[in-house]
Amino acid sequence: MPPRAELPLGVFDSGLGGLTVVGALGRVLPRERFLYLGDTARVPYGTRSAETIVRYSRGCARVLVERGIKALIIACNTASAVSVEMLRAELDLPVLGVIEPGAQAAARAAEQNAEQHGVLAKIGVLGTQGTIASGAYPRAVSQISSRLEVVGQPAPLLVPLVEEGWTEGEVPRLAVRRYLTPLIEAGAGVIVLGCTHYPLLRGLIEQEAAALAGRRVPVVDSAHATAAQVEDWIEQGRIEAAPPGEAALLNELLVTDLPASFEAVAGRFLDGTLPPVTQIDLTSG
Amino acid sequence: MPPRAELPLGVFDSGLGGLTVVGALGRVLPRERFLYLGDTARVPYGTRSAETIVRYSRGCARVLVERGIKALIIACNTASAVSVEMLRAELDLPVLGVIEPGAQAAARAAEQNAEQHGVLAKIGVLGTQGTIASGAYPRAVSQISSRLEVVGQPAPLLVPLVEEGWTEGEVPRLAVRRYLTPLIEAGAGVIVLGCTHYPLLRGLIEQEAAALAGRRVPVVDSAHATAAQVEDWIEQGRIEAAPPGEAALLNELLVTDLPASFEAVAGRFLDGTLPPVTQIDLTSG
Repeated sequence: MPPRAELPLGVFDSGLGGLTVVGALGRVLPRERFLYLGDTARVPYGTRSAETIVRYSRGCARVLVERGIKALIIACNTASAVSVEMLRAELDLPVLGVIEPGAQAAARAAEQNAEQHGVLAKIGVLGTQGTIASGAYPRAVSQISSRLEVVGQPAPLLVPLVEEGWTEGEVPRLAVRRYLTPLIEAGAGVIVLGCTHYPLLRGLIEQEAAALAGRRVPVVDSAHATAAQVEDWIEQGRIEAAPPGEAALLNELLVTDLPASFEAVAGRFLDGTLPPVTQIDLTSG
Repeated sequence: MPPRAELPLGVFDSGLGGLTVVGALGRVLPRERFLYLGDTARVPYGTRSAETIVRYSRGCARVLVERGIKALIIACNTASAVSVEMLRAELDLPVLGVIEPGAQAAARAAEQNAEQHGVLAKIGVLGTQGTIASGAYPRAVSQISSRLEVVGQPAPLLVPLVEEGWTEGEVPRLAVRRYLTPLIEAGAGVIVLGCTHYPLLRGLIEQEAAALAGRRVPVVDSAHATAAQVEDWIEQGRIEAAPPGEAALLNELLVTDLPASFEAVAGRFLDGTLPPVTQIDLTSG
């Protein structure tokens, strides 16, 4: 069955961090509509077991598929790392995670780096415990090139720092430095932001990585790489939702909990006005 | 129906932090057995809405009651703040949260402080967003004394810092200082550790509070106050589980997820060996 062009792209994330992916998608795909689900009643996924992450991911995917989407984008690195293969096998529509596009972008950056500096640097990945433990980035990079090496570092404090709004100052700087140090010492010359929250710390990560390495270290954000891949897929399939020149918007935002600080946190991830928000229940039963 | 003495005391928490409460209970009640449930698949509760916290608390309580307990202790401050009244109304057994004992201990410390220094200092509460937003501590203190004032400060980064094991060094010190500053500036002369994770930062909190206030600031831990209250209840009811001299142990630990780092994290909260651990499912359905 060919995908129905008019349907929205479904995007899910453990919480609101995935809105950074919707932002990147919206910039390259202004004619698409988006249906976003943030599992805010069970966020974060990054500290949970693979079994639990798979169960939660399946629940999120089911809600979006039932509402009607033409493709599923897993914005959460942890959910992508653990669930993308399972969801591809189970669902009758295109499924894209953020790990493969991120690994491709990192591999390109490492190759460019090698051309400039004459040494092939390792790829350093900052991610949640779940993402790093899954080995998904090393696996994805090994399918692109056998000569690229990946080193991973779980960075569990960075998500709470971003959610607290502490993206500047000494506390996030020292935390970023502590997580980057083993990566740079292991020879990482490219850093992957392996979690949707980390782009909000990008400036600090670039500064600290450069200070530790003694030269500029390229920082790769998988949201942009994912958006480029979705753009290719839409263009090749000629399944744009709106005619040229007509802009479509994020049409609905589903959440499983409405925290008191919802608007403040959501606003951190998505520029501009918030779409209509609906709370749904994935957790009782 | 009188409580059956041989049954364990049921304790639940959003995660493993409540093991600090079990530790305090075990020290004063060596003859009791404990059945602990940590809702690790949905931790943390502190950032969620009251509605969701109530739903999760009811699910935890149901599991423990079905397995057979003689009383329910809500070790989580956030769950206590929001759910204790509802669970007391719904359950046919004694229900104790950590807020009321903590408020009583804080009131005593404030009164002692007033005797020593001649001024009645305010009570400063560090807690999760959910606990502070609920107003449970000011409400509990107002029922003890009308002349005591409470100021609250949400401190969402302290839980992830403890779970990451960063309880010493510059990052936790700066975070603690940042959260304590508005409390001390508002005139707090007693600090309540309003979350089961915070006792692991007690040393830093005492140091930073003293540095900010220019003199020692008493720090109150609700785990000990709660344990004393349970001890009274057991003695008055003569419902000890084991004869004098016989030691009972935490007999089972239930969790809703088994994170990879489970033993490391659990070990941080509970001295000594871990009891048998069983994973249960509260989240699918």
